[in-house]
Amino acid sequence: MKAEDDEIFCPRYHRAIELIGKRWNGVILRAMLAGRTRFSAIRQEVPSLSDTMLAERLKELEAEGIVVRKVSSAPPVRVSYTLTEKGRALQAVVEAVSEWADDWIPPAAEQRPREPSASL
Amino acid sequence: MKAEDDEIFCPRYHRAIELIGKRWNGVILRAMLAGRTRFSAIRQEVPSLSDTMLAERLKELEAEGIVVRKVSSAPPVRVSYTLTEKGRALQAVVEAVSEWADDWIPPAAEQRPREPSASL
Repeated sequence: MKAEDDEIFCPRYHRAIELIGKRWNGVILRAMLAGRTRFSAIRQEVPSLSDTMLAERLKELEAEGIVVRKVSSAPPVRVSYTLTEKGRALQAVVEAVSEWADDWIPPAAEQRPREPSASL
Repeated sequence: MKAEDDEIFCPRYHRAIELIGKRWNGVILRAMLAGRTRFSAIRQEVPSLSDTMLAERLKELEAEGIVVRKVSSAPPVRVSYTLTEKGRALQAVVEAVSEWADDWIPPAAEQRPREPSASL
């Protein structure tokens, strides 16, 4: 990244970072980069992600040219989702974020159990 | 990133990607990594970002330990915002996203003017 005044704001960067960081997209992309191609397999990797939300996000990622939806030609009908070259190129971003998270986000955040509601 | 089943979902990664990708955060961080430390200087780098929204985001980033707000001890009072070590460590993420955007987000997206509404 250059520090010159006229190069700081980049609409393409802006669009990219908010697309990747949009709710659920980052974890969906990580599951797909790890090889998940079936709807149920992707959903299983992401706690709290509903079918509806996953379907919506996959459609958006398809519209962005990041994901391709394939339907098998012969029965039984099988739908799979794979990353395009554009999608696979996000591996470097996912790795950079993973490294930053490993270094800077405390593990406690993932280990703290939900507190049960107090009953009087 | 490992592809083993039990390693795909990482709450720390999840938190990191959505924090960085939250609306405006990516562009604010890029402006700060490029050396902007004054409120007005940061805002100037981001078209359409309001004072209110920038103030809110800076507070959130401060709460996350990514930004430090400093007020000069002597008059005139000057407020500056700088990145912590945790914040500066995001350079690698911003660079990875910038490279992906350069490769995959068409420049047309930033150059296409709004179409004037057709008048009959």
